[in-house]
Amino acid sequence: MKKTDVLIIGGGPAGIIAATTAKHTYPDKDVLLIRKEKEVLIPCGIPYIFGTLENSDQDVIPDTILSKDGVHLEIDEVISVNRKDKIARTVNGIDISFEKLVFATGSISYVPQWLKGTELENVFTVKKNREYLDEVKVKLQHCKRIVVIGGGFIGVEISDELNKIGKDVTIVEVLPHILCLAMDREIAIEAEKVIRARGVKLKTGIGAKEISGNGNVTGVLLENGEKVMCDMVILAIGYRPNSSLAKEAKLRIGYKGAIWVDEYMRTDDPDIFAVGDCVEKKCFVTRKLINVMLASTAASEARIAGENLYKLGVVKTFSGTIAIFSTVIGDTGFGSAGLTEEQAKKEGFDIVVGTSDSIDKHPGILSGAHKQKVKLVVAKKSGVILGGYVMGGISTGELINIIGMAIQNRMTVNSFLSLQIGTHPLLTASPMTYPIIKTAESLTWKVELGFRKEERQCQNGMKKGGISNE
Amino acid sequence: MKKTDVLIIGGGPAGIIAATTAKHTYPDKDVLLIRKEKEVLIPCGIPYIFGTLENSDQDVIPDTILSKDGVHLEIDEVISVNRKDKIARTVNGIDISFEKLVFATGSISYVPQWLKGTELENVFTVKKNREYLDEVKVKLQHCKRIVVIGGGFIGVEISDELNKIGKDVTIVEVLPHILCLAMDREIAIEAEKVIRARGVKLKTGIGAKEISGNGNVTGVLLENGEKVMCDMVILAIGYRPNSSLAKEAKLRIGYKGAIWVDEYMRTDDPDIFAVGDCVEKKCFVTRKLINVMLASTAASEARIAGENLYKLGVVKTFSGTIAIFSTVIGDTGFGSAGLTEEQAKKEGFDIVVGTSDSIDKHPGILSGAHKQKVKLVVAKKSGVILGGYVMGGISTGELINIIGMAIQNRMTVNSFLSLQIGTHPLLTASPMTYPIIKTAESLTWKVELGFRKEERQCQNGMKKGGISNE
Repeated sequence: MKKTDVLIIGGGPAGIIAATTAKHTYPDKDVLLIRKEKEVLIPCGIPYIFGTLENSDQDVIPDTILSKDGVHLEIDEVISVNRKDKIARTVNGIDISFEKLVFATGSISYVPQWLKGTELENVFTVKKNREYLDEVKVKLQHCKRIVVIGGGFIGVEISDELNKIGKDVTIVEVLPHILCLAMDREIAIEAEKVIRARGVKLKTGIGAKEISGNGNVTGVLLENGEKVMCDMVILAIGYRPNSSLAKEAKLRIGYKGAIWVDEYMRTDDPDIFAVGDCVEKKCFVTRKLINVMLASTAASEARIAGENLYKLGVVKTFSGTIAIFSTVIGDTGFGSAGLTEEQAKKEGFDIVVGTSDSIDKHPGILSGAHKQKVKLVVAKKSGVILGGYVMGGISTGELINIIGMAIQNRMTVNSFLSLQIGTHPLLTASPMTYPIIKTAESLTWKVELGFRKEERQCQNGMKKGGISNE
Repeated sequence: MKKTDVLIIGGGPAGIIAATTAKHTYPDKDVLLIRKEKEVLIPCGIPYIFGTLENSDQDVIPDTILSKDGVHLEIDEVISVNRKDKIARTVNGIDISFEKLVFATGSISYVPQWLKGTELENVFTVKKNREYLDEVKVKLQHCKRIVVIGGGFIGVEISDELNKIGKDVTIVEVLPHILCLAMDREIAIEAEKVIRARGVKLKTGIGAKEISGNGNVTGVLLENGEKVMCDMVILAIGYRPNSSLAKEAKLRIGYKGAIWVDEYMRTDDPDIFAVGDCVEKKCFVTRKLINVMLASTAASEARIAGENLYKLGVVKTFSGTIAIFSTVIGDTGFGSAGLTEEQAKKEGFDIVVGTSDSIDKHPGILSGAHKQKVKLVVAKKSGVILGGYVMGGISTGELINIIGMAIQNRMTVNSFLSLQIGTHPLLTASPMTYPIIKTAESLTWKVELGFRKEERQCQNGMKKGGISNE
């Protein structure tokens, strides 16, 4: 029988941060992280194993991130949790007693039942498993034509990487556009232009019906009867919460098979917490349950769990998921935070939207300058920012975080009018065209339209022909 | 007699934004911007005229920024303002009547009285005047050795540009380090390392006593008797508010000769507003009057003035200046927001500080990845963020804006623990090492130290040898 105070199951970002935060917060407690993988990959780096990085070795998270903070590590697999006696049993037959347990068991790549032919040779998913991905890389050497089923972030990033190393790549996406679960339609269309110009073929608005082949895959049959020939298929249709262990331990399971947690990241057992992809998510804006899996969200949840293990910190709760995505195609960055215009309308929000165009350096003639486009989705009555996107250069990743922060702080477009920002010719747009402020500014007229119109009419003695800002 | 509703004096960023905001907010009003310069330069782009840009032409703000929004433009110079009759008279003898007036008269480069030899040939300041700067560029062709007096942002940026085009450049800075009015000491030292490695010579902690020469400049004599030989001197010692017109109009003049304004950017005449470098600034954190001139701050003030001209918007006031600076030396970005550690201590704040190191892509092995360093200065009792800096790559400009937003929203380090951010391998640090969150996290232990220590002692039955987080 081994003994620890805090046991973390799972070695991805959520597990690591839960463990190190626990150790920081309760330095006298023993913290043990147990995981089955010999090595853990940086999950968002996985697509880049196929082109930009030389090999998967370069995408490994060093275990020193745990050891330097005094977290113990075991490579083993927990197969059952005895909640009554607070003991976890591993596949190697070791029993580990704990005071507090954290599930950080992550997610499993999804293979749809309705899709025929997924068992064929050279059909792969995007598993977060180094050996598996290394095998895909070996097989890739003999493949020329690849179909990627699923045009979300992972599918798009892998396609761009495979294209970069000379493969003939086709993305099959059943929705009208790639990336369109996260991005507004018009920006998804821009992303399509960029990736098409780089040589990736797109089949959008049409689903895959069957993967065909005889032993080896030979093609993908689409719903319209068209067949895309290929010698490898990558399924990038998403992930499902890995909650089987929690389920067997009779913990409450919530939306789409994810582990239910409260705002302190506690399961229905007060000594058991859960964080990351395996956990149910609630949208920050709509307050509805959603299906978003992001390392950055997981990190935030893990910090809260680590803090609250032994004593609840009240102010440190998780108040809902704001999906903040970013990606790069070629040299163009795409970022998205909160609700898209379409999502907001679907949810019944009374909104106004605005966009602005700028350049990420000033003057825009500077070498390396990249066009920027920003959109904000804003509640019409209150001016509160509900969502937005950024398309631009390398600073897109941090610009979308500024919009993310605005959403989290429930900032209004009015507050952006007096927002102070720093600008520099080589680093940002000019102070006169700084895109988030310009966009917010254009929206203040819309948000307050009723008031303004009336006021103007009074000033002008109800004269006709006033300019409408709608 | 000409007639306008709103008259803006000055054509820099503050004037432009005041004019366009006024026109947006009050579309039925005539807005006239009057300025003496035929063309206006992007002020922060000026240093880059000397190297990165081909010529000053590329740094001109296009007048379409005014015309497209329906703002009228006159090239002329206002020489007096008759407040009683609301008439401005120009140097060309034209009288312009107005309802509302906005001073955006900017600042004038400072030439110290105590410094001998400033009248010599080839001694220049950094005027925001295209013809003048073009003349400097012509003269530069025949100069090899240049002394830049003043190691603030402008001095450092110009020095780096002149070095880039092959000049032998020496910065003379009387303070112990370059950039040290805006930056913490340790980061100023890093900036010195970077600029020295690029070939710029530094004389810090020593003032210039005299510019020597006979007709033409031949050198700069330092306080310690050392003489730095040169054939050009650039004075980059700062700017003074251009408030003479306002003074003559008997408006209230405040700190260091700047125009006094309230939080709506009104002068003591309710129909006259003032914005930008010509206006008195109050520090957002210390509430003291300060001497900071930034285009981004001016932009924020100008938006507020433009909004409030005819009707006060109450919520849209300017609640003090947060100096947010950023610059680049070579490929290293430096950003600073709010108080430095030294300033905070000097002001008597009870603070804790923390730093963290990360890499701006993940995995860090990705090509083009740059080290990042973040520091936060935080109020010990409340955890409120008072200031911070970023050193890093190209995303430094937006990362420092995230810290700036945190200061403006009076966010605490605790709120950063649950802050959600988006991360991407090619755009940001990893979710596990995202530098602002990591820094904030390291400070939560310090902020709550008293509580934690006690709590731990209770848990451990007052056992000895608990780890101190101090």
